[in-house]
Amino acid sequence: MTQTRVLEPTPSAYPYPLLIKQLLLSGRRYEAGREIVYRDQVRYDYKTLNERICRLANALKASGIGPGDVVAVMEWDSHRYLEAMFAIPMIGAIIHTINVRLSPDQIIYTVNHAEDKMILVNDEFLPLLEGMQSQFETVESYMLISDSEGASPPTGLPFVGEYEALLAQQAPHCDFPDFDENSVATTFYTTGTTGNPKGVYFTHRQLVLHTLVETATLGALGRSPLMNSDDVYMPVTPMFHVHAWGVPYVATMLGVKQVYPGRYEPDLLVDLQQREGVTYSHCVPAIIQMILGCSRAQQANFDGWKVLIGGSALNKGLALAALNKGVQLSAAYGMSETCPLLCGAYVTETLREELTDDQQIDYRIAAGIPVPLVQLEVVDAEGNVQPHDGESVGEIVARAPWLTQGYFKEPEKSEELWANGWLHTGDVATIDELGTVRIRDRIKDVIKTGGEWISSLDLEGLMSLHPAISEVAVVGVPDPQWDERPFALVVVHPGEEVDAASIKDHLKRYVEEGRINKWAIPTQVAVVESIPKTSVGKLNKKQIRADYAEYLKGDGAFLSSV
Amino acid sequence: MTQTRVLEPTPSAYPYPLLIKQLLLSGRRYEAGREIVYRDQVRYDYKTLNERICRLANALKASGIGPGDVVAVMEWDSHRYLEAMFAIPMIGAIIHTINVRLSPDQIIYTVNHAEDKMILVNDEFLPLLEGMQSQFETVESYMLISDSEGASPPTGLPFVGEYEALLAQQAPHCDFPDFDENSVATTFYTTGTTGNPKGVYFTHRQLVLHTLVETATLGALGRSPLMNSDDVYMPVTPMFHVHAWGVPYVATMLGVKQVYPGRYEPDLLVDLQQREGVTYSHCVPAIIQMILGCSRAQQANFDGWKVLIGGSALNKGLALAALNKGVQLSAAYGMSETCPLLCGAYVTETLREELTDDQQIDYRIAAGIPVPLVQLEVVDAEGNVQPHDGESVGEIVARAPWLTQGYFKEPEKSEELWANGWLHTGDVATIDELGTVRIRDRIKDVIKTGGEWISSLDLEGLMSLHPAISEVAVVGVPDPQWDERPFALVVVHPGEEVDAASIKDHLKRYVEEGRINKWAIPTQVAVVESIPKTSVGKLNKKQIRADYAEYLKGDGAFLSSV
Repeated sequence: MTQTRVLEPTPSAYPYPLLIKQLLLSGRRYEAGREIVYRDQVRYDYKTLNERICRLANALKASGIGPGDVVAVMEWDSHRYLEAMFAIPMIGAIIHTINVRLSPDQIIYTVNHAEDKMILVNDEFLPLLEGMQSQFETVESYMLISDSEGASPPTGLPFVGEYEALLAQQAPHCDFPDFDENSVATTFYTTGTTGNPKGVYFTHRQLVLHTLVETATLGALGRSPLMNSDDVYMPVTPMFHVHAWGVPYVATMLGVKQVYPGRYEPDLLVDLQQREGVTYSHCVPAIIQMILGCSRAQQANFDGWKVLIGGSALNKGLALAALNKGVQLSAAYGMSETCPLLCGAYVTETLREELTDDQQIDYRIAAGIPVPLVQLEVVDAEGNVQPHDGESVGEIVARAPWLTQGYFKEPEKSEELWANGWLHTGDVATIDELGTVRIRDRIKDVIKTGGEWISSLDLEGLMSLHPAISEVAVVGVPDPQWDERPFALVVVHPGEEVDAASIKDHLKRYVEEGRINKWAIPTQVAVVESIPKTSVGKLNKKQIRADYAEYLKGDGAFLSSV
Repeated sequence: MTQTRVLEPTPSAYPYPLLIKQLLLSGRRYEAGREIVYRDQVRYDYKTLNERICRLANALKASGIGPGDVVAVMEWDSHRYLEAMFAIPMIGAIIHTINVRLSPDQIIYTVNHAEDKMILVNDEFLPLLEGMQSQFETVESYMLISDSEGASPPTGLPFVGEYEALLAQQAPHCDFPDFDENSVATTFYTTGTTGNPKGVYFTHRQLVLHTLVETATLGALGRSPLMNSDDVYMPVTPMFHVHAWGVPYVATMLGVKQVYPGRYEPDLLVDLQQREGVTYSHCVPAIIQMILGCSRAQQANFDGWKVLIGGSALNKGLALAALNKGVQLSAAYGMSETCPLLCGAYVTETLREELTDDQQIDYRIAAGIPVPLVQLEVVDAEGNVQPHDGESVGEIVARAPWLTQGYFKEPEKSEELWANGWLHTGDVATIDELGTVRIRDRIKDVIKTGGEWISSLDLEGLMSLHPAISEVAVVGVPDPQWDERPFALVVVHPGEEVDAASIKDHLKRYVEEGRINKWAIPTQVAVVESIPKTSVGKLNKKQIRADYAEYLKGDGAFLSSV
């Protein structure tokens, strides 16, 4: 061990553990009058936010919740969710953000595995809950959340009361204790390709550090930052999806106006964006596509709306379509295990001067450059670091101060995740000489054909540029001769059509340019109404592979003869 | 102790201590081609910066420096200083940034007290060093720094060699070890009113956290951030003065172009600002006054230059004079003990809409609002927290993750500093309902007259608005009848004059407005060529009080008969 000089603090010095409560200090000081908005139903200022967080903390304590207890939340994006993201960890408890789109069996599994003691539940989910609650092993009580004034909890379940009624009974101040900054603050579950959902968890220290670096990344980079203190923020990534990527903590620390849209309804999202003057949002590609395609969007002017895209690769077709409507998309990269921020798109000053706007989009849709404090490499199967030449492919491995330190109660999978002291992302990527990371694929989604590896993402990106195609997914399907062959699902724009020749002609151009080899042209394509998505809006390739045979029988299926 | 859930990380998880080396990761990734400039002599890119830091680390190790050793630096602001601010702590050693403006006796005291093992010394200071070196008790060797190519160290002193020659011998890569994030990284001495200089010290963890919050503060607040990654940075606060307020670490993390001016010469500073396109600097009021007054400044166009002012109160007269030349001044507040950032000027969105530009200046010259993670109160002599009403006066006490945890080897003064678990700043201030902190005075500079307290800063601010006055300092001097009376030193603009009547008339207006009471009008004023400053450019009120009797004998002294 390196023998550095470590001095004992003077006995009276305050040690200042990094705790989530400290993120609350500054936003109110900067802009006490800024609003937190929930749909067209609630609107209050930062002073009230702080008071309501205290009231909720007092209500939880009065309901028997204490340090180390796990409190789950089943709720759409709301001011109440924001309050819970502070109040629950601030009393030393742990917030379990339940993915309400999981199957009932998965929800039961995660509630029992996380050892939830209480569940805050929106009354929309009561029918779901009533079918599951007899199988919960650790839940002692529930708190009802409702948009209807004066709603009262159903009898027959141990409800401590209704959220607003409970808050009203409590004092608007609370002395929050100091404790170990390595205390777990949040937990949630990620569903992999096989097996049960796995629980990741983040500590107070990790969330404070993630917040600070995310602030620097969103606010201090380049001439047009994504979000500074004067922006208006609306998440369009669910708060159960990696804490809405941590942005609610950033926004609250900076005193930004925040708009919470509840359950996502495209027309309402457009209305809120327009009415509240939203300038910064984030979401997966499928959601922005849905928003831009909805009826209310057709007349809207989105100029000045900056949207960060993550969760899935952002393809150029979508970036251009969004830009056409005034929406500036910019990619970022991370995952549940990484809190999530690892990389953000960045266009260097030189490239901004040299490239056309269109050429710059290639940098805005890339996963980007690792953000401050993130150490990232791509490694081959033996763990050898690959050169940053834009061509050498390998798995992304990462180190940062905010990565889950394991999967809860899964020692073997935890060690796999952290093999050799690096977090293994399962994503295959290249890094170029500028440091730009380009995700090529999930390791399990790479298409192995005739001894070659084809990136399903690359292929999707190129197919998305076909004028008739609005959405596309490509997976590898078994082939006796070539091992695997690419199979594509496409959605076409209303009134458009595609056929084998048109797709083939479109892709041949890229074969001629050397961007893909000719074996990458899918031999099988199915035109469908919609493409299956996971619970967080990503392309569900596991599902597509499983349903492959069904698609071939459908009306839209055809073969491209390469 | 609150029993939260603290989980053991999976054995292979990387623990990620917060270390200064991590601040180096991102700047090069964002803008590898950006330049570090030293005067008109050196110009290189971030890749080279990283290589030179490795070379310096290797050279230090080859010269016998290891973890826990203290390496002092006597140097003007340069690329070499920046390199040392990284390389020395990155090998686990401690950089002692010597204030070269201290008296020889004070330098000898601090070198011995800090237990310096090596000194990196610019050849300009060799004559000074030769007179002191026999009294150094722990120094084993020296490293020569010179602007002259091929300079060689003097014989007779144990020099390990010349900086550039040593770097040239070493490899441009280095594996920096991980160690305890609470290891001391930097130390320097602060001179108080009495007694020996006191050593403050900052750990790797503290400097990383300070850097992140300073980045958020400079970059993510309001529509016109002080510094984002596209700005061009030139410090005009010496690097030995609280690490140039920590900004070199911020700039390097963001990949900002950096310009180092060496020894401060006003004409050269103007030339560098103009030629290199500097957009962000920071300094004490006296320095910006000196720059704006120099001959080269008269023809210069400073539009777009943002200058953060700290170290002393920023008065409105100076802010207006600077604005007249295109320089936007903005105040911040902190001190040596606080790393230094505690507060930064902030104008809320509402005030920006409601107030004229001139009225907004009152907020830009205030100490500002505590930055993220800083907890700050004003307390009375018994430690009672005072209300935030803009009127209740008290001493500022603070908590933040980057405050010195004591004075090195001074247990009693350390406990005084941290009495009741809050760092005592010795500054008297008010906080208004918007959270804006206004420093009224140093506790020891408040003028006690006839049972009233008069803020010397308030008085200086009002006198600075007199059209003939370019600089002013006010101190309390003993008075048999009133306990103390205010005494003012003033410097007038070239060609201008002041007399008792003119000063009295000027101040009477503020008496009538109720801003000061009539006892605040100084009865004694001396017009001088220049006002004594401390080694870091602050008004030296200790000196002024000591020389009071001399000033009264001077030509410029007169009495104002109130």
